Amino acid sequence: MILAFDFGGTKNTCAAFERDAAGAYQLAALERRASPPDADGAYDYATMCELARGLLRGRAPDAIGVSFGGPVRASAGWVVLSHHVPGWENTPLRDQLASLFETRVVVDNDANVAALGEARFGAGQGCASLFYVTVSTGVGGGWILNGEIYRGANELAGEIGHIVIAPDGPPCVCGRRGCVEQLACGPAIARMARERLLREPARGEILRAWVGENTAALTAQQVNDAAQQGDALAQQVMADAARALGFALGNVIVLMNPQRVVLGGGVTKAGADYFENVRAAARANVMPELHNAVDIQPAALGDDAPLWGALALVS
Amino acid sequence: MILAFDFGGTKNTCAAFERDAAGAYQLAALERRASPPDADGAYDYATMCELARGLLRGRAPDAIGVSFGGPVRASAGWVVLSHHVPGWENTPLRDQLASLFETRVVVDNDANVAALGEARFGAGQGCASLFYVTVSTGVGGGWILNGEIYRGANELAGEIGHIVIAPDGPPCVCGRRGCVEQLACGPAIARMARERLLREPARGEILRAWVGENTAALTAQQVNDAAQQGDALAQQVMADAARALGFALGNVIVLMNPQRVVLGGGVTKAGADYFENVRAAARANVMPELHNAVDIQPAALGDDAPLWGALALVS
Repeated sequence: MILAFDFGGTKNTCAAFERDAAGAYQLAALERRASPPDADGAYDYATMCELARGLLRGRAPDAIGVSFGGPVRASAGWVVLSHHVPGWENTPLRDQLASLFETRVVVDNDANVAALGEARFGAGQGCASLFYVTVSTGVGGGWILNGEIYRGANELAGEIGHIVIAPDGPPCVCGRRGCVEQLACGPAIARMARERLLREPARGEILRAWVGENTAALTAQQVNDAAQQGDALAQQVMADAARALGFALGNVIVLMNPQRVVLGGGVTKAGADYFENVRAAARANVMPELHNAVDIQPAALGDDAPLWGALALVS
Repeated sequence: MILAFDFGGTKNTCAAFERDAAGAYQLAALERRASPPDADGAYDYATMCELARGLLRGRAPDAIGVSFGGPVRASAGWVVLSHHVPGWENTPLRDQLASLFETRVVVDNDANVAALGEARFGAGQGCASLFYVTVSTGVGGGWILNGEIYRGANELAGEIGHIVIAPDGPPCVCGRRGCVEQLACGPAIARMARERLLREPARGEILRAWVGENTAALTAQQVNDAAQQGDALAQQVMADAARALGFALGNVIVLMNPQRVVLGGGVTKAGADYFENVRAAARANVMPELHNAVDIQPAALGDDAPLWGALALVS
């Protein structure tokens, strides 16, 4: 039995994988708990251990794979920090869990782990090289090269969210301007819709009917729903976000020529139009000889990708 | 004895490497021939075989490594084409040489081979991951990851020259606009200087003294020489070219976090100012946590990088 931990920031999930008669791992049980707004690292750690003990019922795990939502020094098994939950700074998570559960533990960040999950069990099966991108409250990425996670010299590879594609664009939390994240993630979609509603008072009738004057409360989900129902302003915002991501992916494909790109995260559930816009923008931004090498697919494992990836880390 | 072939487009070079007393390969002999303007693939191939026979003097090589200046299907040992010399289309170069010299042959494109050469014998020694960029009449790149050439799914990885960094920029041979190549390579430097000389009639006095009205004949070398001698217009052009390259390298570092970037090719011999401008632009275009990970060094092997890389391909 292998345990998979997903420290997700807003929720924590523990899963138990067991081999079936054919020897393949199957998801045998799963426990998920929302993390309260005032939770700190110690709280989330204690919660996860409690979930794990519940699934183990006295048994010993063969190994534990851990996906952590934040920067990780995978080689050392250290959490650097969480951008959402205080108190995780420089935590030797691997060694803590290894000594508590007396088993082998591997820890990596959620984008790398989801990339590995999709490569082994999801939309990237059979691909020697894969770039996984998650588009939700931020934009992150993880590389699988020659079937393994590629982490980079400082274990910081994959940060497509902080590639600059519009040097005069909106400011980013990283201190620069026009990062992909600020043009493609969920909060960026909401912000771009808000800006358009203010700038174009005669448009966006469906969105306006929903949010009225309170555009500050607008969400990316509402923008996409309005787009689906025919709101032209919302459609333009969704298309702009897709094009920004696709433009960046074109540059990624020119630079690395991965066999496939897999897109996960809430924003990428926007539907077929979104994917077609991403693909068209990527194809328009590669050399002709790479047109047929643009293979951009939706993730197959959904929210469970980090759990399957955590399994793959140790199996 | 290992033979190294460098089909360079304008010149062809053959080198013989032999082991010294300590077992390390040393460059024992080298023959270089300029390729006449009307040469075709068959002519260059025959020239190279003649150079090789001269170096072999009846001996049999243990292996042959080949650097080819153009797209190559390395896995199949095929030359796809040369952009400079006609008649190379779909040439099974590896098998032709293997049967002629009755030995093992490995063929790859010049950027990949130079990258491997710098990684094993040059400025990238000890680096697990390395991005090599050559800036001369074009801009090309090659990846070394985990000590090996990374070629990508279609063997087209590394094309930093065709990353778009200015969507409204000058048109590129690949059909798009604002590719790095059009803002950073030698002909781009000459073009940008010409444009400035026309636009700014009161500036560029040193350059003007050299070329007079004949700005069409201006070369990147002249622009750099004028910059060194204090021509402010030429300095600006060189700085712009360095900044374009550095901006792109920042994005590359964010995406792949290589241990080191090595710059080779004629333009990168421009001097210390050029390198400082490249580094400053790259540092300004990465997240703060990557500032110290920006390590951009001049190539150490110069024009011999493809030969040392060809040695590394087979040794």
